[in-house]
Amino acid sequence: MVSNPAFRAVTLPDALPLDSGEVLENVSIAYETYGELADDKGNAILLCHALTGDQFVASEHPVTGKPGWWERMVGPGLPIDTNRYHVICANVIGSCMGSSGPAAHASDGKPYAMRFPVITIRDMVRGLVGLLDHLGIAQLHAVVGGSMGGMQALSLAANFPDRAARVLAIATTARHSAQNIAFHEVGRQAIMADPNWADGDYYASGSTPDSGLAVARMAAHITYLSEAGLTDKFGRRLQDRQSKSFGFDADFQVESYLRYQGSGFTRRFDANSYLYITRAMDYFDLAEECSDGKGSGLLADAFAGTPARFCLVSFDSDWLYPTSESRHVVHALNAAGAPVSFVELSAPYGHDSFLLESPELDRVVKGFIE
Amino acid sequence: MVSNPAFRAVTLPDALPLDSGEVLENVSIAYETYGELADDKGNAILLCHALTGDQFVASEHPVTGKPGWWERMVGPGLPIDTNRYHVICANVIGSCMGSSGPAAHASDGKPYAMRFPVITIRDMVRGLVGLLDHLGIAQLHAVVGGSMGGMQALSLAANFPDRAARVLAIATTARHSAQNIAFHEVGRQAIMADPNWADGDYYASGSTPDSGLAVARMAAHITYLSEAGLTDKFGRRLQDRQSKSFGFDADFQVESYLRYQGSGFTRRFDANSYLYITRAMDYFDLAEECSDGKGSGLLADAFAGTPARFCLVSFDSDWLYPTSESRHVVHALNAAGAPVSFVELSAPYGHDSFLLESPELDRVVKGFIE
Repeated sequence: MVSNPAFRAVTLPDALPLDSGEVLENVSIAYETYGELADDKGNAILLCHALTGDQFVASEHPVTGKPGWWERMVGPGLPIDTNRYHVICANVIGSCMGSSGPAAHASDGKPYAMRFPVITIRDMVRGLVGLLDHLGIAQLHAVVGGSMGGMQALSLAANFPDRAARVLAIATTARHSAQNIAFHEVGRQAIMADPNWADGDYYASGSTPDSGLAVARMAAHITYLSEAGLTDKFGRRLQDRQSKSFGFDADFQVESYLRYQGSGFTRRFDANSYLYITRAMDYFDLAEECSDGKGSGLLADAFAGTPARFCLVSFDSDWLYPTSESRHVVHALNAAGAPVSFVELSAPYGHDSFLLESPELDRVVKGFIE
Repeated sequence: MVSNPAFRAVTLPDALPLDSGEVLENVSIAYETYGELADDKGNAILLCHALTGDQFVASEHPVTGKPGWWERMVGPGLPIDTNRYHVICANVIGSCMGSSGPAAHASDGKPYAMRFPVITIRDMVRGLVGLLDHLGIAQLHAVVGGSMGGMQALSLAANFPDRAARVLAIATTARHSAQNIAFHEVGRQAIMADPNWADGDYYASGSTPDSGLAVARMAAHITYLSEAGLTDKFGRRLQDRQSKSFGFDADFQVESYLRYQGSGFTRRFDANSYLYITRAMDYFDLAEECSDGKGSGLLADAFAGTPARFCLVSFDSDWLYPTSESRHVVHALNAAGAPVSFVELSAPYGHDSFLLESPELDRVVKGFIE
């Protein structure tokens, strides 16, 4: 069960029109900022978080007490230098750290639960743009994100082309593949199979679908790591024992690690948010979006006329959003005539590489946003 | 819930000593045969099945009514020609199609459930050798298997080197990797998280852990297919609708397919068997086995002095047991001085390629066993 600390948040003055056709009222956007905003408001960088991330990019997580998720990248003197830039990071709508989502209260005072509308990545971006309007920031110095954060960065560039001068998208994709969807569907089915899920109506019950959510997290976690990384980190080493137990305990270190990842996750994340955000990611296809009655379905057209500069970064061991997906975006940007740089970095850690120690990534980020 | 047709089976006269140190009494081995056994009993081919396979390799499955799982490979005039060879396929111990396993009755007349001992691939092979003894077959013309069937073939060659003249191991490995273990652990946790699992004691309850087993199957199924194969087969195509539902139904074909795979599986397979067999696979490491107090831990030593001829086949799109794992076995066999041929076949279907249409595989199988 997720505890509920007080979050710094704004309620958007206008209702948010959603891709589904529904409208979300009284939208709350919880956010954190780091560094001073310049008088001309020209030094703002929007950081977009990943599926299970949050606004605490460079400050202690209020639930877990752990350091921010990108403390190695964001701070005074770091690649995203808060002595120079005003860094904004907001919890996406659909999530559970203070922004409007299934755990938030609807107008009847009860949690939305599954009454929360199904949202898209573009809807998340609409919420972020609402925050920028509230903050009076007409154009960002840069929008930066990894994984689902990169999807938001690309979506912002495509749908609100004047709002960011620079777009840095790391370890991401412009469309969710069949395999991406398949893994998310396993996670959703695991959550929905948990009797505590109760059609999403578990907030007052005191019993949350932790078992299902933990299984979902375990399955997803494998996709964040590379096969070689797992072999290097765990191999077939046993956990706290000299020989196999011939039972169903976690004999292997990798089993113990996964169980720990699964159970730890349930203490900080809401199962319904996991459903909604994975759904938004599965729906994500920038080219498909621009074919919705008004365009060609070509990814290049999503970026037509964009004034922004782009940088795409992939990691060679990332099999969740492999280099070929970044290259696909780069080709589309080339076709759209947008200035774009692209680098594939070598790192053994798979998709998670963008969160881990990578001096090359530091140099790319620092160089691009300057 | 698995129904329980009558199976052709033999009860082994001797108790089976297991790697755990336990002993399994009254071992039942259910099996099917195809083609005539020659008078000198020299034309027998043992086919070993995969994790969720069974003895119905070339005849109708008695529960599902579907054709045998390798009907395209085994039969009169087919690559494994039942006009020439006597083909034997037995259900492995731990499984649920008539051989001793958790659903079978223990000496007290009740299902073993989790009282069934944890077994290994070598224990499965001990059961198969017991069947060969019963049938009076001193040496097989060949042992053939894909995936977990290939593990059994390699284990038979290593542990009972005189029992097979030819060893054909397809899309397999001599050891389960950390990633392999991780995916299996997700499946086990999904089953054990299902309240109907009830610590494995569900046989009399009328409620089987179908939800958990279906999630386990869905997660595993993704690993049997390639990313490109999934994209080719499903892409982002919608299922029976023109546009996204903005809900949690199976909008995408790949979701619908996975749900179908999951629910169909629960009608023919026992959840406890899934736990036991995945555990056996995770424990599998032929090199580790031969370091158990008596050897070097080098895979080559597992095959030292083997008189058999070997053939290894991998598929380029198989990321579950990739080509590198087959090559690792080939190098060990080279070091052991065993005659071995090796081919990597090109097929888009991932690990499942060995079960699908592949004229190249047909030629390799036919050529090797002649």
